[in-house]
Amino acid sequence: MKLVPLGDRVVLKQLEAEETTKSGIVLPGQAQEKPQQAEVIAVGPGGVVDGKEVKMEVTVGDKVIYSKYSGTEVKLDGEEYIIVKQSDILAIVK
Amino acid sequence: MKLVPLGDRVVLKQLEAEETTKSGIVLPGQAQEKPQQAEVIAVGPGGVVDGKEVKMEVTVGDKVIYSKYSGTEVKLDGEEYIIVKQSDILAIVK
Amino acid sequence: MKLVPLGDRVVLKQLEAEETTKSGIVLPGQAQEKPQQAEVIAVGPGGVVDGKEVKMEVTVGDKVIYSKYSGTEVKLDGEEYIIVKQSDILAIVK
Amino acid sequence: MKLVPLGDRVVLKQLEAEETTKSGIVLPGQAQEKPQQAEVIAVGPGGVVDGKEVKMEVTVGDKVIYSKYSGTEVKLDGEEYIIVKQSDILAIVK
Amino acid sequence: MKLVPLGDRVVLKQLEAEETTKSGIVLPGQAQEKPQQAEVIAVGPGGVVDGKEVKMEVTVGDKVIYSKYSGTEVKLDGEEYIIVKQSDILAIVK
Amino acid sequence: MKLVPLGDRVVLKQLEAEETTKSGIVLPGQAQEKPQQAEVIAVGPGGVVDGKEVKMEVTVGDKVIYSKYSGTEVKLDGEEYIIVKQSDILAIVK
Amino acid sequence: MKLVPLGDRVVLKQLEAEETTKSGIVLPGQAQEKPQQAEVIAVGPGGVVDGKEVKMEVTVGDKVIYSKYSGTEVKLDGEEYIIVKQSDILAIVK
Repeated sequence: MKLVPLGDRVVLKQLEAEETTKSGIVLPGQAQEKPQQAEVIAVGPGGVVDGKEVKMEVTVGDKVIYSKYSGTEVKLDGEEYIIVKQSDILAIVK
Repeated sequence: MKLVPLGDRVVLKQLEAEETTKSGIVLPGQAQEKPQQAEVIAVGPGGVVDGKEVKMEVTVGDKVIYSKYSGTEVKLDGEEYIIVKQSDILAIVK
Repeated sequence: MKLVPLGDRVVLKQLEAEETTKSGIVLPGQAQEKPQQAEVIAVGPGGVVDGKEVKMEVTVGDKVIYSKYSGTEVKLDGEEYIIVKQSDILAIVK
Repeated sequence: MKLVPLGDRVVLKQLEAEETTKSGIVLPGQAQEKPQQAEVIAVGPGGVVDGKEVKMEVTVGDKVIYSKYSGTEVKLDGEEYIIVKQSDILAIVK
Repeated sequence: MKLVPLGDRVVLKQLEAEETTKSGIVLPGQAQEKPQQAEVIAVGPGGVVDGKEVKMEVTVGDKVIYSKYSGTEVKLDGEEYIIVKQSDILAIVK
Repeated sequence: MKLVPLGDRVVLKQLEAEETTKSGIVLPGQAQEKPQQAEVIAVGPGGVVDGKEVKMEVTVGDKVIYSKYSGTEVKLDGEEYIIVKQSDILAIVK
Repeated sequence: MKLVPLGDRVVLKQLEAEETTKSGIVLPGQAQEKPQQAEVIAVGPGGVVDGKEVKMEVTVGDKVIYSKYSGTEVKLDGEEYIIVKQSDILAIVK
């Protein structure tokens, strides 16, 4: 199964935030603040959204920073995704 | 009786979330969080909605993910439906 | 006396929800949740409403589902009506 | 003195709601819920209001139903009026 | 010093509400509800305001009724004025 | 250092409100309500702001009245300024 | 790694506010109110954003004043950035 976003939506997958402290202890994801970095999994077709032409500017595989309080969390086949509007993506990390 | 949605509305029917735990116990729908997956039952004609041209992009039978806090629940002949605007549909599940 | 709605307004009359329980007891309307089904009594002319062209899509006699928290209740000659904007009508029941 | 409304405003005068109960007792206006019926006293010229062309559809003398929580109460020469925008008038009573 | 309003603003001066009760006692302004009647002191040039063409319809000297909760009170040389947008003026009193 | 405002922003400097009471006591600024009079220090270029053409109508040196709850206070080299949008300026004092 | 902002976004880096009190004590950044001055690190391409043409007016290296309650804080490689829309930048400090 795969998610095919509509309009200007983008499907994201949050990047794992596994971090090694200076003393060498590995902190698993839950012990940290959720990172806002994610990978683009699928990109909607864009086009006229809410009466306005939207051109998609991200592509599958991009690492992106997205707005903390945006998007909808979705679970599919045990995996968690976030579906956001492209305008909630702030920047691409290169 | 059937529901004929107006404008950019879409009639959805929530998919049953019957899940078997690892130990083999079947959890009925009520014991779980409501899934956001639904099947498209009927699609409005689109056209000019709120002064903006809307083209319908989902079709009857599509499995879709919709925004958790959107839509109106409707009961007809003992069946429960959700009527959403197409813009509340985030993605098609293929 | 009759109500002639302006613009994109529609006059509705709620359908009586008299239901017979399995044991044969008739529950009068008050003992139940208000149904959202209503009959269209009068339809405004449409036209330019709030700067946008609105085409009326419902006709007198249609059974419709309308949005629970919309509309204004109006009493005329002892009868209760609800006046809604057409955009608050979700679907026609056929 | 008279009120000349600007733009899409309409000056209304609430209709007296004097009602005779079945036993013949006359209830004066205060003892009842305020009716939403009013008579049109003066009509603004319409034209471009908030960047949108508005055509006036009510005329002086019309009995109208207006939205309960809209309008501004105004006292002039001891008389009370309500000034509403035409879009707050729901229907004409004929 | 004088106030020259920008755009669609209008400078108003509230009319004194000195009223004689039936028994002949004069109530000074403070003992009463603030009247919403005011005199137009200065009128902005209109033109394109917030992207929309606004044509000024009131003139200096007009007695007007304005919306109770609108406008900004301003003190200049010991005199109090209210600066409102023309759209907050409901009607001219003639 | 100087502030160069963007778009339709205007840099203001509040005018000192030093007032002599009738008995001759000078009240320093803090003991009084903040005046809304300010001097224009710098004016943005205007142009298309939020999709709408804005023409700047104030000039450096103008004494203006601005809306009490608008603008952002900014400290630069120990001096305090207020940056407002031109639409928050109500009138020029001449 | 670097941040490439989308649309009308701008990546800012807050300027260190290290201040010497009159008695010569250096207050580190935490003991003070956050300054609103920042340096522009990266500028989005502008173009059509939310249906409106946006022309970018700041350039990398500009010192700017931005609106206190806007923007999203982002951490990348241990450095903290703020991503704002250009319209949240009030002025350039020259």
